[in-house]
Amino acid sequence: MTAYEQFCRHAAEINDILCAINVLQWDARIQMPPEGAQTRGYQLATLTRLAQERFTSAENGRLIEAAESELAGADPDSYPVRAVKAAREAYDIFQRIPQDLLAGRAALSAEAQNVWVEARKANDFPRFAPYLKQMLAYAQQMAEAIGYSDHPYDALLLQYEPGMTAQRLQTLFAELRAVSLPLLERITAAGPQPKPAFLEREFPIEQQRAFAIDAAVAFGYDLNRGRVDVAPHPFEISFTRQDVRITTRYQLRYPFAAIFGLMHETGHGLYELGAAPELTRSALTSDYLGMYAVGGASFGMHEAQSRMWENLVGRSLAFWQVYYPRLREYFPAQLADVSLDTFYRAANRVQPSLIRVEADEVTYNLHIMLRTEIEMGLLDGTYTVDELPTAWNAKMEEYLGLTPPDDAQGVLQDVHWATGYFGSFPTYTLGNIMSGQLMAAARRQVSGLDDALARGEFAPLHNWLIDNIYRHARAYTPDELLIRATGEALHTGPYLAYLTEKFNTLYPG
Amino acid sequence: MTAYEQFCRHAAEINDILCAINVLQWDARIQMPPEGAQTRGYQLATLTRLAQERFTSAENGRLIEAAESELAGADPDSYPVRAVKAAREAYDIFQRIPQDLLAGRAALSAEAQNVWVEARKANDFPRFAPYLKQMLAYAQQMAEAIGYSDHPYDALLLQYEPGMTAQRLQTLFAELRAVSLPLLERITAAGPQPKPAFLEREFPIEQQRAFAIDAAVAFGYDLNRGRVDVAPHPFEISFTRQDVRITTRYQLRYPFAAIFGLMHETGHGLYELGAAPELTRSALTSDYLGMYAVGGASFGMHEAQSRMWENLVGRSLAFWQVYYPRLREYFPAQLADVSLDTFYRAANRVQPSLIRVEADEVTYNLHIMLRTEIEMGLLDGTYTVDELPTAWNAKMEEYLGLTPPDDAQGVLQDVHWATGYFGSFPTYTLGNIMSGQLMAAARRQVSGLDDALARGEFAPLHNWLIDNIYRHARAYTPDELLIRATGEALHTGPYLAYLTEKFNTLYPG
Repeated sequence: MTAYEQFCRHAAEINDILCAINVLQWDARIQMPPEGAQTRGYQLATLTRLAQERFTSAENGRLIEAAESELAGADPDSYPVRAVKAAREAYDIFQRIPQDLLAGRAALSAEAQNVWVEARKANDFPRFAPYLKQMLAYAQQMAEAIGYSDHPYDALLLQYEPGMTAQRLQTLFAELRAVSLPLLERITAAGPQPKPAFLEREFPIEQQRAFAIDAAVAFGYDLNRGRVDVAPHPFEISFTRQDVRITTRYQLRYPFAAIFGLMHETGHGLYELGAAPELTRSALTSDYLGMYAVGGASFGMHEAQSRMWENLVGRSLAFWQVYYPRLREYFPAQLADVSLDTFYRAANRVQPSLIRVEADEVTYNLHIMLRTEIEMGLLDGTYTVDELPTAWNAKMEEYLGLTPPDDAQGVLQDVHWATGYFGSFPTYTLGNIMSGQLMAAARRQVSGLDDALARGEFAPLHNWLIDNIYRHARAYTPDELLIRATGEALHTGPYLAYLTEKFNTLYPG
Repeated sequence: MTAYEQFCRHAAEINDILCAINVLQWDARIQMPPEGAQTRGYQLATLTRLAQERFTSAENGRLIEAAESELAGADPDSYPVRAVKAAREAYDIFQRIPQDLLAGRAALSAEAQNVWVEARKANDFPRFAPYLKQMLAYAQQMAEAIGYSDHPYDALLLQYEPGMTAQRLQTLFAELRAVSLPLLERITAAGPQPKPAFLEREFPIEQQRAFAIDAAVAFGYDLNRGRVDVAPHPFEISFTRQDVRITTRYQLRYPFAAIFGLMHETGHGLYELGAAPELTRSALTSDYLGMYAVGGASFGMHEAQSRMWENLVGRSLAFWQVYYPRLREYFPAQLADVSLDTFYRAANRVQPSLIRVEADEVTYNLHIMLRTEIEMGLLDGTYTVDELPTAWNAKMEEYLGLTPPDDAQGVLQDVHWATGYFGSFPTYTLGNIMSGQLMAAARRQVSGLDDALARGEFAPLHNWLIDNIYRHARAYTPDELLIRATGEALHTGPYLAYLTEKFNTLYPG
């Protein structure tokens, strides 16, 4: 056995454990009986510790080193070299992170999430604040352990979005703001958009489900390697590319929740399903820092796929020109008097709101900037935890012209900080930016792409994404992937052009 | 930390892995997408190897030894002493089993099961025979490694039924035969029993499910610590006492499959749910030889609970006197013209058949004797694998008066031998025998038990079983439990008395 094969065998075993963790997580979120939670927590903690011990072991260090030597002259872009490199980078970072920091953060996370639930219910930020302070202290220690040259946030970003920095984010955000804020101002100048009347009607769940799955399968989702379930907070999760599960939720009077929600998770799912078969059970489908089995280059690149399929494809006029007649077959009574134009506008209604997860394409990034700026400010000392409600509300007014009536609908709305996930918020907006670049490049490279999409044929786009993004799993950084696939580093141009054109057409001045 | 606490911490970690294995197995049997099977197999193999490595490690040997020393003067019946003893026994056995025997058997098992499916479909025993020969060779090696003084079968029985031997089985079987064969002969003398006409009607699945779950909950099944799903081959599985899942299957024209199937699995489930809370994640809820998380003393004692609730309670006249009116509420049209007596007789119809899993109470044990005698004969050289179809058919004629038209309905009908489970078949019949003893003892010890059952109150029986059997999990052997609970060692008297009385009443001469 070569040194690389030995490395792979060890990586496969770790990947097996990470996949098992994902199965246990999926089960806990979908169907576990209520009193199973505590012992499931022990099971997850044990498996996570086992995976981490195996990854950070001296034995793995020797395997990585031997594989590095053996591959010294190999193509630096080849999967074997990239697999060893991914393991090396995570291994070295783990050497710098104190064991008790991870254990302490994990223990606090479980408790902090419970307190967050209570605090949000009681609209009581001071109840949550001490936990947030401790979580922030862990994040700061984590940043110091990982290391950074400019801003502590850079170290946290590394866990979710390799290559991203606070400074790059600030530039990107300024570009987004320069377009989004005037666009939003113009759209909202005419006053609040009325809620479309047809959304008062009942859309039976079984038909919502059937249509949403039809669309997912049309996009390329493979039910032989996945399944669709119900979850209050929809998510995608995979246990190798052979078993990639997606979820959605159903609202009787708001079919958009299920339909666009499942398109979003389908995008995540297509990424995982599209990994090259030879990367199954490999270091390139293992997120070692997160101790999570996943086949995407970064949180942002993953989100680019969900946004691509949900927004750039799923909320497009071209899609509904083909699929609205089919939707009407599922809901003949409910949609009899609703024109395609009315429906399409309803699916793309811009309406500033307090809640991120309900935001439209124009306002979504503003919610993210607000959170990211607060996270950066917490880490560099601009804000204290106690100042957060004030800071939140001020930014909400500045970006969206709204003031939350209470902290439950303001600073307490997201679970992320309770889990310790500082630095993951901006990846949602990075996903939007990347989705614009990828779609523009696919248009340039795939002849007849728009004609195909207008006929409801998604394979040309899907195949381009498989060839350029999905099959590589975690082999390349987001920047590398973008340059390989589009010829250009990350930039906001195509995304902002898309946003401007789409919403100028929908809301002509 | 005491030596025993250190032992427990290690045992808890192993139990966490075993529970995770069970979750992955449950998922694979209930809902895994078809193409997930191969990588799920790798995940299960890795977790099983991890659990086994941790259990058989030198470190665990030291932990066991230190705990033994520390507990040297303690009550030999206390849970701590029993936990360490259970670990010691399995640890010593593992020291005698060559590593490559387990690995080889596991690898062959996956392949042999696939071949068995094909062979059964094609009615082609010779296709399966070479795999069965290899599996038998592994079983023989296993018996030699475990060790025995009288019959190699004794060593195999040890894995499923501590304390049981080939010789004891032969005595028990002779007693069963002496009663069952004349009883069956008398019942069948009048010719074949017609199939009740009402079983030609359709019983909607949703109502079958609702009634079956009502009965399970009435018996004591706790939906906050479990759930009910559909499985083509129903089973029960647990991931600690906090999450104990049961399954059943539905046949539109045969509601007995779902109702009695779920009662059976409910019996298994009540055993797991009833384990003492302090035994959660312990050596006494871990089957180390099977590398399986389970809280029952043996396969036979587990089966005693499923038979108790399915047959002694669920198929009793007392039960249906209370529950038949309720069943009629679910199926008013289907059961309008069906009297309680007709229904009760249909639920207890005796009809020799070729298929074990469809057998009634009178013929079931004959199916088991046939298989057990063949297994013993394979191990001691009485039969060769190639002679099995002939041996099977001869015994089928002797015990049930039937000759299978083909091997698919004969020697190829059970998956057990393909999995390598030689020695588990007799535990089904041991369960029947024990269920009779337990019910007789409960009747003696719980005043008014039959009156309670006749009112549809199951808590007195359930609580007696919790106190005497369930809470102890794996602390005592089946023989010890029987003596503690009933004052008597294993014997066929109460079970045969039950069988004779019930079926003499149903089929008066």
